[in-house]
Amino acid sequence: MVKKHSGMNGQGSRFNRRAVRVEEAQRRVLEAAAGQVVGSELVALHESGGRRLAQTVTASSDWPPFARSGLDGYAVRAADIAEASPEKPAELRVVYEVAAGQVAPAALQAGTAARIMTGAAVPEGADAVVMLEQTAEAMLAYGSRAVLIKRAGAAGQHIAPCGEEFRRGGVLAVPGTLVRPGHVALLGTFGYAEVAVRKRPRIAVFATGSELLAVAAQLAPGRVRDSNSSMVAAMVHQSGAEPLLLGALPDELAAVEAALAEAWESSDIIVTTGGVSVGDYDVMAELIRAFKDGSGVRTKVQLSSLQSAAERPASRLLFDKVAMRPGSPTSAAVIDGKLLFALSGNPGACFVGFELFVRPAIHLLLGVREALPTVVRARLLTAVEKPSPHDRFVRARLVIGENGMLSADPLAFAKSSMMASIAEAEGLVIIPAGSKGAEVGEAVDVILIP
Amino acid sequence: MVKKHSGMNGQGSRFNRRAVRVEEAQRRVLEAAAGQVVGSELVALHESGGRRLAQTVTASSDWPPFARSGLDGYAVRAADIAEASPEKPAELRVVYEVAAGQVAPAALQAGTAARIMTGAAVPEGADAVVMLEQTAEAMLAYGSRAVLIKRAGAAGQHIAPCGEEFRRGGVLAVPGTLVRPGHVALLGTFGYAEVAVRKRPRIAVFATGSELLAVAAQLAPGRVRDSNSSMVAAMVHQSGAEPLLLGALPDELAAVEAALAEAWESSDIIVTTGGVSVGDYDVMAELIRAFKDGSGVRTKVQLSSLQSAAERPASRLLFDKVAMRPGSPTSAAVIDGKLLFALSGNPGACFVGFELFVRPAIHLLLGVREALPTVVRARLLTAVEKPSPHDRFVRARLVIGENGMLSADPLAFAKSSMMASIAEAEGLVIIPAGSKGAEVGEAVDVILIP
Repeated sequence: MVKKHSGMNGQGSRFNRRAVRVEEAQRRVLEAAAGQVVGSELVALHESGGRRLAQTVTASSDWPPFARSGLDGYAVRAADIAEASPEKPAELRVVYEVAAGQVAPAALQAGTAARIMTGAAVPEGADAVVMLEQTAEAMLAYGSRAVLIKRAGAAGQHIAPCGEEFRRGGVLAVPGTLVRPGHVALLGTFGYAEVAVRKRPRIAVFATGSELLAVAAQLAPGRVRDSNSSMVAAMVHQSGAEPLLLGALPDELAAVEAALAEAWESSDIIVTTGGVSVGDYDVMAELIRAFKDGSGVRTKVQLSSLQSAAERPASRLLFDKVAMRPGSPTSAAVIDGKLLFALSGNPGACFVGFELFVRPAIHLLLGVREALPTVVRARLLTAVEKPSPHDRFVRARLVIGENGMLSADPLAFAKSSMMASIAEAEGLVIIPAGSKGAEVGEAVDVILIP
Repeated sequence: MVKKHSGMNGQGSRFNRRAVRVEEAQRRVLEAAAGQVVGSELVALHESGGRRLAQTVTASSDWPPFARSGLDGYAVRAADIAEASPEKPAELRVVYEVAAGQVAPAALQAGTAARIMTGAAVPEGADAVVMLEQTAEAMLAYGSRAVLIKRAGAAGQHIAPCGEEFRRGGVLAVPGTLVRPGHVALLGTFGYAEVAVRKRPRIAVFATGSELLAVAAQLAPGRVRDSNSSMVAAMVHQSGAEPLLLGALPDELAAVEAALAEAWESSDIIVTTGGVSVGDYDVMAELIRAFKDGSGVRTKVQLSSLQSAAERPASRLLFDKVAMRPGSPTSAAVIDGKLLFALSGNPGACFVGFELFVRPAIHLLLGVREALPTVVRARLLTAVEKPSPHDRFVRARLVIGENGMLSADPLAFAKSSMMASIAEAEGLVIIPAGSKGAEVGEAVDVILIP
C-alpha cells in the first residue's frame, strides 16, 4: 500500500495541483510527442487500407499512359464524320479492331474506322470515338466491312488524352495520410505493389485500483470489473495503434512501478487508468508527484527499473490537473522520453481524456499532420443546464436535419459515469468554462468521435 | 477469347438490357442476401472493437452493484450534517475507512463518519458522502480521530445508488451492433470476457480485362495496371469483411469461369470488376446474359464447374443495368445461392457500385439492421451543371460551416474516371434522374462514405 499521508500537510501537497487549460495541456502533449514518429514498414497494397502513409506517393507515369477510348465504339478521324447525320450517315471502312490491352497495327487513314473497346489505346491518326449505339454495321463490295456513323462528332470526343488526369512526378499523397480505398486505387495505378506505412505504435495499457477484478471474474462485495483496459484497447486499435494489455493492478507502488518499467521497455506510449485523484491510495497521483519535485532533485518515489528517471531532463511532468469536466485529475508526464498518460478511472472521464490527449499523441507518432480532434459547429437539441467553472465535455448524439443543419443531442450529461452514453456518443459538446450551460438551439463546438 | 458476335443480331441481344432504378436494384440485392447472415465466433473482449455483435448483450447484475461513493471524502449520516456550516462545523468521530474494493466492517452509527475513497462501497447506515476538500481532520480526547464537516449536506449526495445505471437483465446492445469502445466498456463491466461476433464474410474479388497488368508489372503499350482489385479489397476490409484476391484475368470465358468456380467454393460473395459493358470482349456481361435466358432453360454459356447453375432456381439475374451514372452496366446475379456483383471496370463507377450494392450486401451478411448507406441533406457549394436522364452520384467533399450547416463540394464530377477524387470523397451527392443538375445552395441528398 502507498504510505498514507495523514494530517493537513499531507493533504495540502496532494491538493497542490494547478489546473491547466485543455488547450495548454494539448499543446504540452503535442510538444512532448513531436519528433517521436514511429518507424515505417512495407505492406502489400491490398493491406494498406486504414494505415498511415510513411512515404510520398507520386505518379510514376502520365495518366492515362496513352490516349484511351472512353467507351465501346469506333475510333475515327473527326473530319470524316463532321457532317454525318441519320439521313446522311458517314460510311467508313473498318480496317481493324483494337481491344483493350492491344495496340493498333497501323495509323488510321482518312475514310476508315477502327472498332475499339473501352480502355483501349486510340490508334494514331484517330481523334474521336463514336459510341457503338450510334453506329450500324454495313458490308462493302468484295465483302469488306464498313460502319455507318449517324451523328456528327467533334475531335476529342470520348477520348481521354495521355496525361489528362496525372502528370508523371505529380504528388498524389503525402506522409501521414490515412490510406483510403481511393488512395489504394491510385497506388495500384502507379505500380506501388508495396506501400511504406507507419508501424503501429505500441500502447501499453494498465488499470490501477484494488477494487478491480478481471473481466472474467465473478463480482465480489465492493469490487467491480476492470472495463477501462478493454475500452482503451479498443480506442487504441481505432487510432491505428496496437494495445499491450498489462492488466489491472492493486494500489501498490511496487506493483505499479514494475508495470511501468515493463510498459516502458515494450511500448511507445503508456496509458494508465485510475488512481489519479486525491484519495489516500491514488498510486498514480503519488507517482506523478515524483516528477513535480523538480528535475535534478532526488524524489521520494523510487522507480526501481527507471532509476533516477525524474533526474533526467527527459523525464518531466506535463500536467497533473486539467481545467475540465469530466476528468480534471487527468495527468501526463514524460518518463525518460516516453509519454505517460494517467487517465481517470471513471469510464466517462477516461474516454474524454483519451480523445483529448492520447489519440492526438498517437496521431503524432503516426506522422499525422492534423493531430488534434476535429471540431465542428452544431446546434444544441437539448439544453445543458449545468454551470461549470471549467470546460465541460458532454457526450452527444449528432443529427443532420432535413435542412442540412447539424445538431447535437446531449446524452445524460449530468453523470459522467453513465457508461451507456459512451457507446452512443458521436461527439463531445464543448461547454466553455464560465458559462451557465447552453440553451436549446445555441451554436456549440463539438468534437467528432470516431 | 469470347466468341465475337458480329452483325446486328449479336449487338441487339447485347443491348437488350433493361435498366432498373437504383432503389429497385438495392431492393433486389437485399432480398437476395436476406437470411444469409454468416456464422459467429467468440473473440476476446479487447479484440471485439469494430466487429458486429452476434449476441444480445444484457446487464448481468444491477449497476452499480452496490451504493458507490462518487468521490474521495467521508461517508456520513446526512442527519448529522444537516446544520453544518464553516462557523459551526459538525464534528464526527472517524470510526474506520473504506478503500475502493473493501467493505465496511460495520454499519455507520449516528455521530460518526468513515473515510471513503472514490468507487468504494458506502457503508450501511451512511447516506451521504462529503468531499474531502470540504473537511478538516481533528483530534478528539484520548487520541481518537475526528473530522470537521464545514458544509451542510443532503441525503444521497455523491452516492450512486445500487442499480442506478442498469438493472440486471436490461438489454445493452442487440445483434448486428457495431462494437464501439463504449460497448467494450459495457461488456467488460458485465463480465463478457469473450464476445460472440459475426465472422468476417469472405469476399472473393477478381478483375477482368486483357489490358490489365499486375500492380507490380512495368507498364506496356496499351496496358494498364489492375488497381480495382486492391481498391475493392480495401473497401471490403472497411466493411468488416475479408477479401480473397484472385487476381486479374484476361477476357477469356474459360479463365473467368474457373475463377468464378474457385470464388464460389471459397467465399460468401463474389465481386468482379470490368467486362460488364457492351464491348465485344466483355466477358462478365456474356456470363451474366446466361442467367437471363430463363431458369430451366439450357444456356449457351457453360459454367464448367457450376454446371447448370442457371437451371436452378437458386441462380438468377438480379439486374444487368442500373439507371445511374456512373456505373450503368453494374450487374448482379445469384449463382447457386451466392451473390455475384459484376462492377464496372471504371474505378469511379466501381467505387459507386460498391457503396450502393456490395457494402449493403456485406452488412446484411453481418446482421446489420440498417444495411443501406446513410443519406443526409446538404447544400451544394458548387453547381453540378450536367443534366442526366438517370440518377447521378457525384463524389464530393463535405464541409460543416461556421453556422453548423452541412455543405457538399462536388469533385471533378464531369469525369467519372477521375481517380484522385475517389480518395478525397466523403460523400456521394445524388442528382436525381430528370433534373438539369443542381444549383449552388440547393439542398441535395448525400450518401456518406466511410
